[in-house]
Amino acid sequence: MKQIQVIGIGAGDPDQLTLQAVRAIGATDVFFLLDKGEDKAELVALREQMLAEHAHRPHRVVVARDPDRDRTAATPGYAPAVDDWRRRRADVFERLLIDELADGACGAFLVWGDPALYDSTLGTLEEVHARGTVDFDWTVVPGVSSVSSLTARHRTGLNQVGRPVQITTGRRLAEGGLPDGADDVVVMLDARRAFAPLAGQGLHIYWGAYLGTPDEILVSGLLDEPLAAHITRVREEARARKGWIMDTYLLRRPAARDDRS
Amino acid sequence: MKQIQVIGIGAGDPDQLTLQAVRAIGATDVFFLLDKGEDKAELVALREQMLAEHAHRPHRVVVARDPDRDRTAATPGYAPAVDDWRRRRADVFERLLIDELADGACGAFLVWGDPALYDSTLGTLEEVHARGTVDFDWTVVPGVSSVSSLTARHRTGLNQVGRPVQITTGRRLAEGGLPDGADDVVVMLDARRAFAPLAGQGLHIYWGAYLGTPDEILVSGLLDEPLAAHITRVREEARARKGWIMDTYLLRRPAARDDRS
Repeated sequence: MKQIQVIGIGAGDPDQLTLQAVRAIGATDVFFLLDKGEDKAELVALREQMLAEHAHRPHRVVVARDPDRDRTAATPGYAPAVDDWRRRRADVFERLLIDELADGACGAFLVWGDPALYDSTLGTLEEVHARGTVDFDWTVVPGVSSVSSLTARHRTGLNQVGRPVQITTGRRLAEGGLPDGADDVVVMLDARRAFAPLAGQGLHIYWGAYLGTPDEILVSGLLDEPLAAHITRVREEARARKGWIMDTYLLRRPAARDDRS
Repeated sequence: MKQIQVIGIGAGDPDQLTLQAVRAIGATDVFFLLDKGEDKAELVALREQMLAEHAHRPHRVVVARDPDRDRTAATPGYAPAVDDWRRRRADVFERLLIDELADGACGAFLVWGDPALYDSTLGTLEEVHARGTVDFDWTVVPGVSSVSSLTARHRTGLNQVGRPVQITTGRRLAEGGLPDGADDVVVMLDARRAFAPLAGQGLHIYWGAYLGTPDEILVSGLLDEPLAAHITRVREEARARKGWIMDTYLLRRPAARDDRS
């Protein structure tokens, strides 16, 4: 039996590692790193710094190429494209588990933030396990998500008293607008500035990029046209300077005073 | 100027403390604990264990009585009851900051899970700060939420691929049913078994109580009548045995295959 740990390593600050994650890293024989072929040298360096500090037993680092996902597919073709990508990703995981991890050894996947939120590692492991081609068990170490990191840095709650919160994607916000029935909406994976068309509707925005890192940028306030343009500009400048950006934001519609129950 | 740290301490497992939280605890002069007058001796002991291990500089622990919230109020009176409770809670915080924390000293509130999620500490501090009666600044240390803890223990994601997630309360689920537009719904603060009427609709439930503690209970599966009754029974037995319960759950409606975009 092979053991796998899926370890949430926090949103970008190495001090966001939990004691459980530190212990899990220390117990790992083989770290599997997926290279997305993107230019995020800082993230790679951050991860290496964590290993240098916390990986104590003799260990190997195996880097595999994360299959490209065909993001050019139009919406109708999206589901099959995702299926194909998931299958190729499971192929990669399967080879790693068969070829790179001895029986009785402990492997680990390090996941930024929390492994439960918009990350495919757990789903891929489940798919490989269902194939039955390699005998392994796995555990999950929860991490501080970028959502928790965002609200902490803005010193605000995620929800208003007794009210719901929705976490969604930029794609969905752009296509469907602000969801009904949730006055607090966290938007992730937004490459299309889905907040911009929502300016002037009385929403507050809490925006953050490179959370927890020395490059962190925070902007918040009433989402009017000037602020939307300001965030767009800040975002583009940062991306041009660093070559990549990871950002997320919370949109808040102040709850009506008589509808707080 | 007085300094306050609001520290997320994870969902119940002392190893869920982040390195940042450990450092924050180690830098604290005065810990403010709010006693809700409930019988959760294990939680008090857990918190004491964290302080014994990580509070290094000489420190004081100040226990204050958390004002009772009038939960008997009918829904129409809910908002005023909450307002009154918030005001009384701010009064308590104000007295703590004025009387129990010297200028230049560092105080801390320890919050289970993540301070952003269904916790009133941040809102109360903001209210006290707005009063202008005591000069203080505050920072927030994010924590592993009970939501992340739940999904980690069930080894499942919070969202389906590219789809939204809603976090809501038992009260809202009971009153409004499953929200539109979210196939994954996390329910917190549910004292009324709001999942039970949803049995037989093809939902999956991932339920957990006392997450991260030695008493942890996990149940998952297709939410049919027998499983709903089973969870109710397990929940009531546990609560009778321990005198209190803290539980949360994820309801998942498997996304239609052709609606995954």
